[in-house]
Amino acid sequence: MTGLADIADVGRDARRGGWSRHGFDRAELELREWFTAEARRRGLDVRPDRNGNLWAWWGAPGPSAVVTGSHLDSVPGGGEFDGPLGVVSALQAVDLLRSRGFTPAKPLAVVVFVEEEGGRFGVACLGSRLLTGAIRPDAAARLTDPDGVSFGEAAHAAGFDPLRMGRDDRALASIGAFVELHVEQGRGLGVPVGLASSILAHGRWRFTFTGQGNHAGATPVEDRHDPMLPAARTVVAARRAATGGARATVGRVVPNPGGTNVIASSVDLWLDARAADEPRTREVVAAVEAAAREAALDEGCEVAVTEESWGGTVRFDTGLAAEVRSALGDVPALPTGAGHDAGILAAHVPTAMLFVRNPTGVSHAPAEFAEPDDCAAGVVALASVLEHLAR
Amino acid sequence: MTGLADIADVGRDARRGGWSRHGFDRAELELREWFTAEARRRGLDVRPDRNGNLWAWWGAPGPSAVVTGSHLDSVPGGGEFDGPLGVVSALQAVDLLRSRGFTPAKPLAVVVFVEEEGGRFGVACLGSRLLTGAIRPDAAARLTDPDGVSFGEAAHAAGFDPLRMGRDDRALASIGAFVELHVEQGRGLGVPVGLASSILAHGRWRFTFTGQGNHAGATPVEDRHDPMLPAARTVVAARRAATGGARATVGRVVPNPGGTNVIASSVDLWLDARAADEPRTREVVAAVEAAAREAALDEGCEVAVTEESWGGTVRFDTGLAAEVRSALGDVPALPTGAGHDAGILAAHVPTAMLFVRNPTGVSHAPAEFAEPDDCAAGVVALASVLEHLAR
Repeated sequence: MTGLADIADVGRDARRGGWSRHGFDRAELELREWFTAEARRRGLDVRPDRNGNLWAWWGAPGPSAVVTGSHLDSVPGGGEFDGPLGVVSALQAVDLLRSRGFTPAKPLAVVVFVEEEGGRFGVACLGSRLLTGAIRPDAAARLTDPDGVSFGEAAHAAGFDPLRMGRDDRALASIGAFVELHVEQGRGLGVPVGLASSILAHGRWRFTFTGQGNHAGATPVEDRHDPMLPAARTVVAARRAATGGARATVGRVVPNPGGTNVIASSVDLWLDARAADEPRTREVVAAVEAAAREAALDEGCEVAVTEESWGGTVRFDTGLAAEVRSALGDVPALPTGAGHDAGILAAHVPTAMLFVRNPTGVSHAPAEFAEPDDCAAGVVALASVLEHLAR
Repeated sequence: MTGLADIADVGRDARRGGWSRHGFDRAELELREWFTAEARRRGLDVRPDRNGNLWAWWGAPGPSAVVTGSHLDSVPGGGEFDGPLGVVSALQAVDLLRSRGFTPAKPLAVVVFVEEEGGRFGVACLGSRLLTGAIRPDAAARLTDPDGVSFGEAAHAAGFDPLRMGRDDRALASIGAFVELHVEQGRGLGVPVGLASSILAHGRWRFTFTGQGNHAGATPVEDRHDPMLPAARTVVAARRAATGGARATVGRVVPNPGGTNVIASSVDLWLDARAADEPRTREVVAAVEAAAREAALDEGCEVAVTEESWGGTVRFDTGLAAEVRSALGDVPALPTGAGHDAGILAAHVPTAMLFVRNPTGVSHAPAEFAEPDDCAAGVVALASVLEHLAR
């Protein structure tokens, strides 16, 4: 049976542990081929869209389609479930529906979105953002990976034309409902399967601290303008600002030049901040920024803050949630702090998310896990929802 | 005339600014070729030693030799003067002595030490450490650069046999006196040229903080074990511990996996600490380590501390200093916080250092500078000292 074990060897990251699979890199391209073969083996009609996403159709593409799916890429050194579980469960749900002799009255599709994590080009949900027009295609094409390869170049190499990318009204108009199954990324779910109620508001900010590069031995501390100091105080301030369910994280810090015996001349630091709504999120970021400015001033450094991405609170469609409940019974609904392609699509089409229980809550890390029985329950639930919607 | 301008284009670092020239990399190899050609043009006999250092002899190699020189490598994104000024000034001093019709009675050599900054393989003064036996050759050969290339492999590619490296008693026995000219790396010198009295005790320690990698959005802050927090508090603690002339610097921080939307699973951080003597330096490091352990405990993280290098206080030879003063008059003597090949050699042979004034004190950074008139004064002083010693 098709399962995560089939792709467990693709994109292993020996250095970081776990998996590193990023939009249009070798691992993700291999997974796309695997998906295409699996879908064709089921007689599904695989059609890439203009934006690098893959669609596998059961029945002729058309309006009121019931669409499910997720993504195959990961964060650097990520887990096995985030993304692939939704794709694999969709294929398994198709198998289950067929074994029951079900034939959908409406078109049904499994979609694989490209570069959901932003692990290569820095912007999360890139495929769904392009599809919905949430990012300009020229801006997307100019995004670069750490080696300087642009998204446009990578897409071109994968057989896509960056000039033809952008909002795809025909694809959007064809979607009657989108249901994404995903591993839960906290420990909030006491049963095998639940439903998402909302996604926290979420943004990324870059803080660039500039000081005076100098010799680590010859420069008395009182003469220093060391940007590492305000950067460190900003990390501490971010934690202090994340109260009342808000989240503030610094996972990436890059000192320049980054030598052991050199006072850095500048330090880049990225703040990931999320909270229930926009005002609360902005409040967290403002508190961190104020602390950063004060710390920079204390050290005679400069700081520049750039908003690199922003997304408001996503509230999933209540009508579709009611449909899901009538298929599954009274499953619990919970908010999540994680962004998803479903969160991008929710602004355009009725969208729902199913979560599969995560016993430890660990995600975006090699230890990410879901019990096989819970994953199987997820497939049964997804099949029931698709059956209910596609009748 | 031979000068720093001749090599200003070699090893420019467009990303960091300044120059990046590291032991046996393309830039350093080009500079070695340049040095060899310049020395041969002067009729000097260029002989690499077994450890990757270059020696250019005026007169037959032999005991009681008067040796000068420095290094051609830099820190990543370093300045133009640190290292090359000592090599260029040595060649210019030879020219000046010849223009005066001077012929040394003792052998005179200009030496270029390899990988002084440790910018590629992580251990400073690698060439002089190998020569004096201060590092085991097998340990040196196993050091790796950020691309995973070992020092042994790089040395082999450059034409040296790593198996033949190690303490060179014949070379050490030939040195009657070693005098290194270097740009000053603080603002402590009020006149063009001064003399080094001592080098601060100095070590490098790696702090590895280990926590639980996780999702930056889905993980409530109260469930986190984020190693970035104790790492940041350690940066602040290092500054607090550096009192009374001690120096403590964190210039390099590497979170793993280093994703924007990922709580790091581990963070490596390097502490560079220096003080007047060993007990004071150990006191600084102990204070930083205590703060790191407390901060790690607060966050439910682990911390491991490794001493990567250590060197006690260097006090330069008072007899040689008296000789230098009888050649130059009463030049000021000052301590320095920067390590040098001269500091390694000082434990084995009479050693002195001449400093050329640095108007801003900036070093290990692109803005490092010395006035042309001061550099010229350095050459005149070095020539006088060599003449006095080699009579």
